[in-house]
This record gives sequence, structure tokens and C-alpha cells, in this order.
Amino acid sequence: MNTRTGNWLAVLLVAAIVTAPALAAEVRYEAHFPDLPGYVTLKCDLHMHTVFSDGLVWPTVRVAEMWRQGFDAMAITDHIEYQPHKKEVPTQHNRPYELAKGAAEAHNLLLIRGTEITRDTPPGHFNALFLGDVAPLDTADFVEAVRQANVQGAFVFWNHQGWKGPEKGRWQDVHTTLFENKWFQGMEICNDDDYYPEAHRLCMEKNFTMLCNSDIHEPDLRKKSSSEDHRNMNLVFAKDRTPEAIKEALFARRTVVWFKDQLIGRKEYLEPLFQRCVEVVPPRVWPGKTQRNAWIELRNVCQADIQLERPGEWRPEKLVLPARSTTLVRVPITPGAKRVELKYTAKNFLIAPDTPLEVTLVIAKP
Amino acid sequence: MNTRTGNWLAVLLVAAIVTAPALAAEVRYEAHFPDLPGYVTLKCDLHMHTVFSDGLVWPTVRVAEMWRQGFDAMAITDHIEYQPHKKEVPTQHNRPYELAKGAAEAHNLLLIRGTEITRDTPPGHFNALFLGDVAPLDTADFVEAVRQANVQGAFVFWNHQGWKGPEKGRWQDVHTTLFENKWFQGMEICNDDDYYPEAHRLCMEKNFTMLCNSDIHEPDLRKKSSSEDHRNMNLVFAKDRTPEAIKEALFARRTVVWFKDQLIGRKEYLEPLFQRCVEVVPPRVWPGKTQRNAWIELRNVCQADIQLERPGEWRPEKLVLPARSTTLVRVPITPGAKRVELKYTAKNFLIAPDTPLEVTLVIAKP
Amino acid sequence: MNTRTGNWLAVLLVAAIVTAPALAAEVRYEAHFPDLPGYVTLKCDLHMHTVFSDGLVWPTVRVAEMWRQGFDAMAITDHIEYQPHKKEVPTQHNRPYELAKGAAEAHNLLLIRGTEITRDTPPGHFNALFLGDVAPLDTADFVEAVRQANVQGAFVFWNHQGWKGPEKGRWQDVHTTLFENKWFQGMEICNDDDYYPEAHRLCMEKNFTMLCNSDIHEPDLRKKSSSEDHRNMNLVFAKDRTPEAIKEALFARRTVVWFKDQLIGRKEYLEPLFQRCVEVVPPRVWPGKTQRNAWIELRNVCQADIQLERPGEWRPEKLVLPARSTTLVRVPITPGAKRVELKYTAKNFLIAPDTPLEVTLVIAKP
Amino acid sequence: MNTRTGNWLAVLLVAAIVTAPALAAEVRYEAHFPDLPGYVTLKCDLHMHTVFSDGLVWPTVRVAEMWRQGFDAMAITDHIEYQPHKKEVPTQHNRPYELAKGAAEAHNLLLIRGTEITRDTPPGHFNALFLGDVAPLDTADFVEAVRQANVQGAFVFWNHQGWKGPEKGRWQDVHTTLFENKWFQGMEICNDDDYYPEAHRLCMEKNFTMLCNSDIHEPDLRKKSSSEDHRNMNLVFAKDRTPEAIKEALFARRTVVWFKDQLIGRKEYLEPLFQRCVEVVPPRVWPGKTQRNAWIELRNVCQADIQLERPGEWRPEKLVLPARSTTLVRVPITPGAKRVELKYTAKNFLIAPDTPLEVTLVIAKP
Repeated sequence: MNTRTGNWLAVLLVAAIVTAPALAAEVRYEAHFPDLPGYVTLKCDLHMHTVFSDGLVWPTVRVAEMWRQGFDAMAITDHIEYQPHKKEVPTQHNRPYELAKGAAEAHNLLLIRGTEITRDTPPGHFNALFLGDVAPLDTADFVEAVRQANVQGAFVFWNHQGWKGPEKGRWQDVHTTLFENKWFQGMEICNDDDYYPEAHRLCMEKNFTMLCNSDIHEPDLRKKSSSEDHRNMNLVFAKDRTPEAIKEALFARRTVVWFKDQLIGRKEYLEPLFQRCVEVVPPRVWPGKTQRNAWIELRNVCQADIQLERPGEWRPEKLVLPARSTTLVRVPITPGAKRVELKYTAKNFLIAPDTPLEVTLVIAKP
Repeated sequence: MNTRTGNWLAVLLVAAIVTAPALAAEVRYEAHFPDLPGYVTLKCDLHMHTVFSDGLVWPTVRVAEMWRQGFDAMAITDHIEYQPHKKEVPTQHNRPYELAKGAAEAHNLLLIRGTEITRDTPPGHFNALFLGDVAPLDTADFVEAVRQANVQGAFVFWNHQGWKGPEKGRWQDVHTTLFENKWFQGMEICNDDDYYPEAHRLCMEKNFTMLCNSDIHEPDLRKKSSSEDHRNMNLVFAKDRTPEAIKEALFARRTVVWFKDQLIGRKEYLEPLFQRCVEVVPPRVWPGKTQRNAWIELRNVCQADIQLERPGEWRPEKLVLPARSTTLVRVPITPGAKRVELKYTAKNFLIAPDTPLEVTLVIAKP
Repeated sequence: MNTRTGNWLAVLLVAAIVTAPALAAEVRYEAHFPDLPGYVTLKCDLHMHTVFSDGLVWPTVRVAEMWRQGFDAMAITDHIEYQPHKKEVPTQHNRPYELAKGAAEAHNLLLIRGTEITRDTPPGHFNALFLGDVAPLDTADFVEAVRQANVQGAFVFWNHQGWKGPEKGRWQDVHTTLFENKWFQGMEICNDDDYYPEAHRLCMEKNFTMLCNSDIHEPDLRKKSSSEDHRNMNLVFAKDRTPEAIKEALFARRTVVWFKDQLIGRKEYLEPLFQRCVEVVPPRVWPGKTQRNAWIELRNVCQADIQLERPGEWRPEKLVLPARSTTLVRVPITPGAKRVELKYTAKNFLIAPDTPLEVTLVIAKP
Repeated sequence: MNTRTGNWLAVLLVAAIVTAPALAAEVRYEAHFPDLPGYVTLKCDLHMHTVFSDGLVWPTVRVAEMWRQGFDAMAITDHIEYQPHKKEVPTQHNRPYELAKGAAEAHNLLLIRGTEITRDTPPGHFNALFLGDVAPLDTADFVEAVRQANVQGAFVFWNHQGWKGPEKGRWQDVHTTLFENKWFQGMEICNDDDYYPEAHRLCMEKNFTMLCNSDIHEPDLRKKSSSEDHRNMNLVFAKDRTPEAIKEALFARRTVVWFKDQLIGRKEYLEPLFQRCVEVVPPRVWPGKTQRNAWIELRNVCQADIQLERPGEWRPEKLVLPARSTTLVRVPITPGAKRVELKYTAKNFLIAPDTPLEVTLVIAKP
């Protein structure tokens, strides 16, 4: 019987007065991505919904989802204007944040107050994060709503550009207005199941922060994060593990996104990320002077599978390093060499649309 | 972007006026249990919660859960008295049923209107199903609430007996009052993670219907039903696939429950269920006159693993027939026999507390 | 302790004289593919190795692998010429078949005697099946070895064309010689992890039987067959479940192959296979005169996921029907229509290189 | 086509002369168990078979199995006397070791030369490890065979005591003879699917080393090691990662065994193992003076699930810490306390037959 454990937040609040029930246990599996020099790598989903707009779960459910899947930070961003449950759940823009706050603290998750400004296309939907109060954004004029967010110092980004409408996410005058006022700073290059190459291109051209969020409405059924099945994730390279540091990192564009089997971002972050994800273990016994091959171990310490490829004699050599494992590979070496450099293409590390990262694996005699 | 698909019910209602979005697809895996002679076997969960009491999901989420896990029928049974979300979701006792109705129809699920009468222990919590209107049960007096349910012709059962309180589910005068008026007809012998042997014993002694429900409050993360991980399930042996037939079957006590790795029920239903679950395939070539062993195939066509055991020479012979598979086993035979009967104990078919079903496998020369 | 059960064949043979040990149980999961009109669909792997050439397992292991993964028929095809274990396992060309025979009978699997004629490229490797004796094929001249196979009435096919060598599987004079003598009848269009489009093209041009085999050397770790992970499989449409019927079907080119997530074959077999794999369940309540959408169920009864696609308004509509499940989809309909035909491309049903099958789903008012 | 990659050892040997084929990749998942102070924890299986006795795989297959499942060390121990494949694989007692040696080096696995002395019961089967030459043990007299092993300085243990025969593993005069000569030093308390409580008791009474091996004959289908499904494993606490250190540790009885969901061993090793497996993370915000509960995180860093239990008010509190995860639990605390000690029984850490380890979790104000 879990009447009480079902609503664990209530449990927390009344804990002092009830006699102790059986243990309520939740399990978290980390989503491993290495830190970069000078930064901690924080895993964030910054776009999701609850019953307070058109989502189908209570705000505390989102906290439990984030925690068990290894995230560090989250923003609930219910629609301001689209409120289909209004008859059952009267509009309260700040309530999802308030309801989730205690749960987030118990789970040691960073909770960011946010919202989604939901207008038709164009101009489309925009998220505003790090707000102090959502209510002032509930205004008829779209540009005014975005301005209000900026007045509060919010980080604002364009959601799922290219999603719908006959204009298919084409840049319009209204976007120029926002851009020239510096009223939005990022774009979702991925949302739900979709990747938007035009958004990716715009992020590089106009120097926007790249984002990738779940925009989830239903319950998330996942228990862990894996390359085969994980929630959209932003890796944010922050100076420390605080909401303020996430805000600073987002404005400074220090993100890589994990979308399906791909890691996408600026080369300056993807390159060191790859280097810290893959460890090359040289042969235990260094090959003799006539050997043309050697066995090496490649350790992938991160949560994403890594796909490598290089030209082969008969066909391209394809190599997958599964997440959190060691792969034993036989590689060609120059007989007698003390150091071998192997050039690969990291097929699923994307530094621009259709442009994978080139990497070098160094095998050095110990 | 799934703003609209997130709330699929809304989609359904406005389908005629919006342009077609991408396909919204949901997947169902059947939970296979054979029909019994004269009856269809309907898979039911008759106790669950939503945000309209202390649950954490929208009513349509429960429909999606039931459908994808292979159920046929369901009842949402929010608490009448325990309404911790009242400030955000004002009390509307019939609203969960109304909101789930359209979704249930689209999914071809049978939806039963129900509720949970939630009083302290004793007397504990009771569910009432097949109501026309929940509101009249919202009354201060417990016995009066149960009487009101009976006035509407409801099927009423005692939930999670033995759950809590110093009396630990002991039978009280109030239960005698209900019993003598025939105002409750069943008991949960299993609820959530717990099995209540005393409830099991009472069902046999007082001729109650045995039930086993999820009582779920959180989202259900399961995609399929398996012996390792499935939602509590009542197998109801009904005359046809309608709510009325389920009601008739519940009053007639025609149930077997699936709890963890066990099937529990009256022998008169467990025995034919076992016979229809396990098919014995005799050897392709019947053993010669001197052979003392033969290879046979045992096909388990149901969704539950089946555990068999019989005395062995050195140690008991244990045999698991995994769900939906064929097991090849070598069995001892009498040399020259044309028919062999092997007696097993079906360890996980429980006809009474601590009492497994005894079965005979017949291997007959084709 | 499984000294004896380890070698289950030995168990079988000595069963009459030992006292009964605990049950030795093996589990089979069917690989479901529907029969075609007039034919049973037999699942076959016709190319695999054991310690008797360069494989790493005992012949009975191959039988256990086939059985548990839902196959019907198999051929062990050890290399005649390549015998790297000769020092430990002296050459005995017919021994793998003999050792596997009893196990195949106990498992009710059809075992076909075969071998691999292993020459350098060109001409490459060829398999010969349905032999009475492998020994006569152990001869220095390649063409003579193939002729000897034909003398025994064998079905002969070219393995993994395009695999290696500077000629990369190019058709040579020696192939013309065999072809003009009708000394080989099929080609592997898939082998291990590779698909050979040139072999596929040649099968269509020269009317060869299409094949797809595992060519496995290591132990097969798979317990079941699924779209995500299965052993290469030939679906052979045979008149009955006998080796003779398989032979007749292979000569008559009645095959479809299951390679990774694709089903590949001649349109005359792929089309009826699709029709029998997918069942369309019309809406329970037929849509009213103004409705432009309806919910239908698509049941995929086969072991392979099925990928459908059709043009959409904003983007192509992609739909995956997972194996052995039911998918609920909302489809557009003409208001008032009594019958709707939806045209899809079955992306993973390949009737020629790069050419998927076009299909029509018919939704008819019951 | 994997003719060559199939037999990867051959590849290794001829690597210098063939042109480079595609990469042959194998994947390893570590089996995480922490080191103990002063010792490295080495994961070992010391009893397994190949085609050189009654096993069903080539010796190199055993190396690949060990590597991918996260083991450090292994011994192939084919039967000296039981050679059912002799007709196909003539007896060569040292050949399995020789064939596996190169593969073990490439995989950085420690390979120990061993064998199984296989007599009827009594006295049963015994393994001898760290031999220089198996041949001298091939002698008719059982005691002489064991003596020969000791002449070579072998570590000798009694396998699967209690396995079969009417005496069911009862201690006999012959065991006294060996014991008084100090000719055997350990016993398998687990073998294959069986646990032998009498062997466990004898290990404690007579100060034997406790062992737990697979005794596998078939191919091992496992890809990873988990509580749900792993190969029997000895954790050997060695001074360094060498065969010599393993030998020293075995003679010194420094083992804990992992059998199904249990860790079994001497208290002096199980206790520090538990302490290093479970990390207690205190609440981020220490509870106020009136709070009677706190949320803490329990991190289980090892590969085995850990089962905890302590008395509860209504029922025992049961808690499972899944392998390699963090569990969030609410625990009772004394209001105002700066340090809380919670006493649990670690149900699956067994220090004697039927005797679980008692542990204390300390929650200290940071």
C-alpha cells in the first residue's frame, strides 16, 4: 500500500508526525561524462511539462525522472498560454516550481525556474530560464513577453525551430528584432525526436548557445541513460555545481548536447571531451621489430557509445567503443616504431552539420 | 515537439480541425493467458490513483499504461477523503473517469467507474466498482458510504488488509456488520508489493472474491508484462468481454491473481489454467523397449514462468518453464511403456496459503 | 557439476545405464514468420563451422544454438582445405555431421550434410549441401571439387562474394564455366555482418537463389532472435518440413533472407509475406461523417520489426511496428468513407538493391 | 566472412604476413569489486573444461569469456581420466594451456596451468593448480595422483563435495589421509548451480580455502557480470596481480566467493569488503532539531546488489542497493543528533552457513 509513499513530498512534509513507514527507496544510475579542464560537466534538461499546462504528470515526477537518470539540473517550463487542463487545474504559473522545490532539494538536484512562451508560428515558442516570477510574462504581446524575461535577467532560447507552419522555422523580422536587442541567446538544435540542421547552422553563424531538450509531456519510462535510449541531455561546462554557474555557462555557450547516438557541439568542447572519454592502453609487451600489428585496449569511460572509422584496405574500418567498457583491437603499426598515431573519424561527434570530429589515437611505448 | 501529441486526448477531440501531424504511435504487448472453457480470460487492474487524489499522473496516463502492458479492463479509484492536491486540483470525484473515457474507447479498453473509501484503520480502505456516480459516497459515516455503494449495485472489496495500524487488519465488529449485510464481496490478497496470507485465508473461509491490484500512485515505467516485472493483475474469467460480464464474474468469484512470480486462486480455476498453459509434446521417435529416458518438449504458452518440482534421487528436480517458450527435458520412462505420467508440484500455482497445486504431465505415444 | 550434462549427447547415449541426474533443460524461443500459401516457412542457417576446421565449438553446440533461437534446419559446413586445428583434431570431413546427428534428432532439427570448398580468390569459397559423403570433394582441382558435389546432386552456392582480394568478387571465367554447366545455383547476398549488393544484383540477373548465412566460427551468444540481434536467417518456403523439401525449395529459389533489420528477397515472396505479417484492425466505432482521422491497430505477428513510411505534410511519416506487438496509430481518412487505402513504403522489405516494397494497408468498415 | 577472425589466435600468429583485415574487436565490462587494504582483489574462475576432455569449446574461447566478463585470472582444468572425445581429439593433457597461452597474454589475463583428477565417489574429483606439467598426474592410483600434484607445489582442492553417490560427499578415510599429509588445501563450497553447506562448514572447521567455480562445459553466453546472471567468481585478495600472488593468497585462504546473489567468505574479509562497497552520503542539509527523518544516499560501488534488512514497526524494512548505483533512502534519526548509527543485517553477505553479516551505517554531520 503506497498511499503515502506515492506522494513522497507529502511524506517529507509530514515526516515528523507520522510513525515510520517502510523505507521508500529510489535508485539513481549516473550518466558519466568527464569534466573538462576548469569546468564541471553538468547534465541538464531545460524544457519539460507537467499537468500545470499540457503535461501529464505532477511536478515531483519530473524530479524523480531527472534524479534516477543521472541528471544534475532541470527546468520545468510549462506553457504560459496553452492551458488545456485549466478546468481541472486552474492556472498558477509559479506552482510547478514551488511544488518541485522540496523534492529537488532532497534529491540534490538544481532546479531552475522557467517557462515556455507559446505563440503560433512565426515566431514560434521560446523558453525563458532563471526567472524570479513567471507571472509578468503572461502578456498578450510576444515581444513584450520576451522583453519581460530579459528584464528579469533570463536566459532565453528559441525552441524546436523548423517544427511546423508553412514558414518551417524561417528567420523572420521578429527574430531580427529580438536578436538585435540581444533578447535571446540560444536555440534548440534538437527537441524530442528531431534534429534541426538549420538551427545548428544558425547557432554557428550567429553565435547562439546550442541546446537539446526533451520537451517531454508524458511520463518518462527510462530507468537509465544509454546510447540506445536516453533523454535528450545538455552537457553544460560550468565553473561549479550551482544554478548561477549554469547560467554563466549558458550565456558563455559552453555546451555539448547528447542527442540519440550523437554528441554535438563546438569543436573547442567536443575535442577535449573526446580526449577525456577515450583512454588508450598500449600493449603490455611492446611489439618486436618485425611485427606489423599490435593489440591495444581502448577504454571508453563515458555513457555514450563512440563510433570510429578510418579507411581500410578492402572496406572502411568501423569500430564501436560501447559506453563504459574496454575494447580490445588489433591495429597496424610500423615495425620497430616506438610511437604510433592512428587517425580516426569520430562519426558521432558532430562539430557542424554533417561534419564529424577528426581525432588521433596515440599509442606510445610505455 | 509534442505539445499536442503529449496530450493525445486533446488531439483526438480537435482532430477534425487541425492539419495532420506525424503519426502518434503506441505499442502494446499482449499478456497471454489462455481462456478457460466457457469463459474469456480478462486481465484487470481495479485499484489505481491519479492527480485527482494523491496520485501523480493524469487519468489518460493510466489508460496508456494498461493498454501497452496487455490489460483488458481497469478502474481508476481515487480516494474520496484523502485529497492532498486539493489546492491545485479542486475535488471532482467523477472527473478521472470522464477524462479517461475517450482514451479507453480509442484503446479498446473496458473502463469501470470506481472509487476508494478511505478511512483510518479499523475498518481500513474499501474499493467500490461499477458505480454510476461517486458523489453520494462522500459522506462522513463509513458504513453509510459502503451502503450507498451497494445501493448503486457496486462490487465492494476490502483493500490491503493487514497493511497498518496496531490491529494489523484484524477482523472487527464493523466488518461483521458489512459481511452480514452482504455489503462487501471481496478482499485484496495482494496489493502493491505485499501478499496478505490472512486475507487469503479469509477469502477461502468466508467465500470472498480474491483480488490483486497495483494501487499505483506514481507513473508505471513498465513496457511489458513478465514474470520478472509486471503490474499486479487479476485474471477474471468472464462470459464475454464487457464490463457487465466482469461484474458478474467478480460476484461469482471467478478470479486467479498474478502476483510477482505466483498465480494464486481457487483450485477449480488454477487447475484448468495450468492444463491450458502447458502443452506436452511427446518424443518424435517413441523410445525403444530398453530405453529408460526420453526427450520431450514442454510448451508454456502463458506470460508467467512456471516452476515445477518433483522428488529426485540426489536432490529435488527443479524445472522452470519460461513464459512463451519451449523447454526440452529428459524424463525417466518405464521401458516399453506406451504412456507415462509424471507427477509434479507446480510451485508457483498457489491454491491456498503455502499450498501449491499438484499436477500430472501425461506423455502418450502418438 | 555438469560433467555429464555438459556433453548432453553422451548423456543421451548412456542414458540407459546411469542413474537419473537432475533434469537437463534447454529453452527455445520461436522465430515467428508466417507460412505462405502452399508452403511452410522453414528457418535455416546453411553455413557454419566447428573445431573440425577453424571453428571454436563442438558440433553439438551448433545444434543447441539453432534450437534455442527458433531455427528449423541447419548445415555444418567445415572447410575441406583450411584445417588449422589438424594437429589436435585430425581431419575427418564427415565427422561433424555424424556427431551432430543424434542431437539434431533429439531437438527435432533438420540436419543437412554440407561442406565448404575453400579456395583462394578468385574463384572464392563455395558451399555444397545435401551431400552423401564429403570426402570425394577433397581434391586439388577447384572445378573438379564442384563437379563432384554436383555428381552427388548437391545444391552449390558462392559464399560471401566481394569479400576480399584485389578482384573484389568480380565475375571470372571460372564462374562462367560453373554457371554454364549449371554447377552452382545460389549466392550469399549476406554473410556475417556484410551485405553484398553485387551478389544481390547477380542473383536477379542470373536467376540465382538468394542466401544469407552466419558463417559463424565462435560460439553464438544469442538466446533469442530479434530485429536488434539475430543470427542471419534464410526463410525457405518448402512444401513440407523435410530436408528433401528444403532442397527442392532452394533449387526453386523460394527464399527470403533476414539480415540485420531487413527482409530481402524476390517480390513474389516478400509481398505475400508482408500481407501475412501485418494485420489491420479497423476502428471499433467507425468514424462519423465529419471525422477526418481514425484510430486503428496494426498487428505485426512476425519476429522482425517492420518499418513503414509515407509522405507527410511537414515531414515523412515514419512508423515502426515492433515485432510481435500491436501498434495504435491515428490515420487520416476521407470523411464518410467506408473503406480507406493507405499507401506505405515498407522500408526494410527489399525487393532489389535500394528498392523497398510498396504496400497498401486497407481499412474497411466491418 | 570471419574465417580468420573466427580463430583470432591464428590471426595473431600470422599477423606479420597477411595484409590487414578489418578490425577484430572484443568488448570487456569490468566486474567491480574494491581492493582491500594491502591487497588487490583479483577475480578468478579456477575450474572449466574444453574439447580436450568433455567440454564443448576450444581453449581460446575460455579466454574470451573470462576477458569480456571482467575476470583477471583463470585455470583450464580438463579431466585427466574422462576423455569422451578421445577418438576425435587424442589426449594431450598440457595442450589446452598451451593453446590458450597466447590469447591470455593478448588479453592481459593470468593463465594458471591446472587439471582435474577425476575419480568416482568416494573420494570424488579434485583440482590441482599451478602445475608445471600435467602428465605425471595421469596415474592409476588416486592418492598418488594427488601426491604428484603436491610434489609440483600445486594448490589442490576438493570439487563439488556432496555432488553425487550414495555417500553424498561424506568425509572418508581417504580424505583424512590427504588432509593429514596436507595434500589438499581448499574446497569448492559452490560449483555450477549448487551451494554445498557441508563443504562450507568443513572449510570453517578444518581451515580450508573457500572456492566457487563455474565448472563450465558449454559455451558461456554471458556478456557481463551482474547479480542476476554472472559466472561463479572467486575474489582472491592478492599482494599483486601475478599468478604467484594468487597462489600465495589461495594458500593463505584470502578469498570471498560470489555465488548467485550472495557473497560468502570469512568475516575478516567480508566485513572490510562491505565497508568499501557501500558509501554513505549524509544529508546535504543536516536535519533541524525537531526532524525525525532524513534523506541519505547509499552508494553501492560494487558489481553485486546488496540486500539490507532491519526490524521495522509494521514489518521488516528491506532495502536493496542495486549494483553500481545510488539509492536515496529516508531513515529515522534522533532529533538533534549529530551522528546516527543504523544497524542492518547484510542478508547476502554470508559469514557462515545461514549466518549473514551484521553491519552499521554511520551518518555523520559533515
